[in-house]
Amino acid sequence: MNQIAPSSSVGTPDSLARLAEVAVRVGLNLRPGQEVLMTSSLDAVPLARLITDAAYKAGASLVTTLYSDDQQTLSRFRHATPESFDHTAGWLYEGMAEAFRRGAARLAIVGEDPALLAAQDAGLVARANRARAQAYRPALELITTSAINWSLVPYASPAWARAMFPELPEAEALEKLWAAIFAATRVDQADPIAAWAAHNAVLMRRRQKLTDRRYAALRFRGPGTDLTVGLADGHAWMGGQSTALNGITGNPNIPTEEVFTTPHAARTQGHVVATKPLAYQGTLIRDIRVRFENGVIVEASASTGQEVLERMIGSDDGARRLGEVALVPASSPISKSGLLFLNTLFDENAASHIALGQAYSKCFVDGDTITPDDFTARGGNTSLIHVDWMIGSAEIDVDGIDAQGQAEPVMRAGEWAA
Amino acid sequence: MNQIAPSSSVGTPDSLARLAEVAVRVGLNLRPGQEVLMTSSLDAVPLARLITDAAYKAGASLVTTLYSDDQQTLSRFRHATPESFDHTAGWLYEGMAEAFRRGAARLAIVGEDPALLAAQDAGLVARANRARAQAYRPALELITTSAINWSLVPYASPAWARAMFPELPEAEALEKLWAAIFAATRVDQADPIAAWAAHNAVLMRRRQKLTDRRYAALRFRGPGTDLTVGLADGHAWMGGQSTALNGITGNPNIPTEEVFTTPHAARTQGHVVATKPLAYQGTLIRDIRVRFENGVIVEASASTGQEVLERMIGSDDGARRLGEVALVPASSPISKSGLLFLNTLFDENAASHIALGQAYSKCFVDGDTITPDDFTARGGNTSLIHVDWMIGSAEIDVDGIDAQGQAEPVMRAGEWAA
Ligand SMILES: [Zn+2]
Ligand SMILES: [Zn+2]
Ligand SMILES: [Zn+2]
Ligand SMILES: [Zn+2]
Repeated sequence: MNQIAPSSSVGTPDSLARLAEVAVRVGLNLRPGQEVLMTSSLDAVPLARLITDAAYKAGASLVTTLYSDDQQTLSRFRHATPESFDHTAGWLYEGMAEAFRRGAARLAIVGEDPALLAAQDAGLVARANRARAQAYRPALELITTSAINWSLVPYASPAWARAMFPELPEAEALEKLWAAIFAATRVDQADPIAAWAAHNAVLMRRRQKLTDRRYAALRFRGPGTDLTVGLADGHAWMGGQSTALNGITGNPNIPTEEVFTTPHAARTQGHVVATKPLAYQGTLIRDIRVRFENGVIVEASASTGQEVLERMIGSDDGARRLGEVALVPASSPISKSGLLFLNTLFDENAASHIALGQAYSKCFVDGDTITPDDFTARGGNTSLIHVDWMIGSAEIDVDGIDAQGQAEPVMRAGEWAA
Repeated sequence: MNQIAPSSSVGTPDSLARLAEVAVRVGLNLRPGQEVLMTSSLDAVPLARLITDAAYKAGASLVTTLYSDDQQTLSRFRHATPESFDHTAGWLYEGMAEAFRRGAARLAIVGEDPALLAAQDAGLVARANRARAQAYRPALELITTSAINWSLVPYASPAWARAMFPELPEAEALEKLWAAIFAATRVDQADPIAAWAAHNAVLMRRRQKLTDRRYAALRFRGPGTDLTVGLADGHAWMGGQSTALNGITGNPNIPTEEVFTTPHAARTQGHVVATKPLAYQGTLIRDIRVRFENGVIVEASASTGQEVLERMIGSDDGARRLGEVALVPASSPISKSGLLFLNTLFDENAASHIALGQAYSKCFVDGDTITPDDFTARGGNTSLIHVDWMIGSAEIDVDGIDAQGQAEPVMRAGEWAA
């Protein structure tokens, strides 16, 4: 509804340097002497350089940036043989896992073209993704188990801005996206670090309150949706700051507005419609409709991208089950921007959502010590994928249901009930 | 003397695409299904993209580019703590070694700023280099033992062009450097692939002739130089094409004009002056003068960069001994360009040279099967470094000395004697 007003400082080196500072000090909360492994696209070189500066100033022992390039990715789809798409750079993903085991922090700059692979063969896209996901699994496990401090921060790439604002000239589209990024990341505030501390405190109160309620389930109701999401036994709500097993308390997502927890992999029932399109690995999936029985998707459709959706949920057994449920008020600053970002880091913070696939072990009351067997026994889901998609809006009510089946309002018309 | 005339096609996408083609087809001679691990600076993105295209067209299963960035490198020297300089990205270098073990080919795009680190603390530069060299050693061994096909190809970065032509505007400097690169890499010829085949045949005849002579030593004489380089027992001369242990015959250096072999690590005597400045890891070392006794440097000086020279030869035991001796006629195309490239890939192909440090096991008549013990017993040198520097010119005579001590002319006034 409200547009964020572009300020004169939008896109200036100063704002970008403040974003770099937030990435290192709030996102990673980098420990002096810690190594940093950063991933970035070539578009984001200016931010990667500023983050490198900020990290060394914060005492990083070494910053290594692994750059990716959309053009080189597309080159493969244009020229490589189909047989080759099952091959991946296992040595690199194993190296990343090893870096994490040796204590490196992980920073990812995200801002990819939401439609990069839209025109490519869906079967090849799925095979390349699957090969990469399998090879990346050991590294991802260190992320999903919060073994290390890690963070995602955004960068406005031209392709992302064009996808969001196809009707605008590129420079104007970029300016609008940067303004939204700087607002959502609190870089436009007088003291971004203090603003993040205050925001983290608000999220902390909300998650503690929800954890204390020990709901057995959440029920989402609204147009096209009546979904009961069973919660894992002994689940805990997370959001904002998170303390990794290495003892460092950072913000894994910059921006973030959500509080979230682990559903029970076998206890979701009912049907749900997505309230926003989902940008999944280069394809835009629109109007997702899904029905769950005993935690498993038994029906799924989409008005565009149905083949990609089907391949996604066919990735493995856990890809048809939930790994996350998250609550975000419809009045969240990102939601109020009125923008569809086509990027999960933003869109998941504009609406309540669920995620298919891998659950976070952090979202248990004893998350730091839970064993893999307990994790599974108490309802934690396991998968190579973790894909958030939006089911909240100002038309959605959410009830909390206790162990006796009693319901109480959690959200009404998209806002916190209490 | 002669300047290369800039042609109208210099720097056009077409020339660059032909260079990419030479890199993949001549340099790597990529095998269909083979993975490619490429390193590049951010300056060379256009060439890296074209090489990626060429590699996929040639059947690459995957091309992964590891980009480096001078600005991020400098950021460390500006902001990081001195203690941190012994830390390196071991996980990445181990990953590279693993990629080679799994059969990846290695392509390196080179075009670094010859003076990048000139203003930085020499002690920190040396510590960072040493830590990297130690971590990179397993990967480097797979290169020096020719386990895989690998190749170096050049790219004209702005900083390199500025260093070569400080008096010219940047655009003009770049155009001159590109013209020299396209000429030296034979990309300016009608059929670059055929031109490389002809050139490789010439080098092959020259190296076979030298190998057949079985010289015990080479003696270099000229102004300031009287150096006798003992050769390893059962050495073989290499140059141009080389067949890796994986069976693939490629050209490890694009361009290349040299024929080279392995000196005996304990049999070099006399004094030698460098005939060109040496660009070593960001510092220009001028007027190197060195004296050898029984294969070991016992005196070393330089008019600039002496501290860097001393740290270099102090890297380890093998850094004071020779690992390569190479012959290049003063009339080589690169030499005739009259340019000082400040880059070993070019300057070593403009003059006869020696290299301190690691020897190539390929440079033995039984190089594919030689054991590490035999390699050492027959005079092969071992070190973390391998640094070529130029000792040839049109004023240098070279004699071959046989086992009986008889001398015969190999080069006179910088040209082949026969
Ligand atoms: Zn979420
Ligand atoms: Zn999620
Ligand atoms: Zn050489
Ligand atoms: Zn060499």
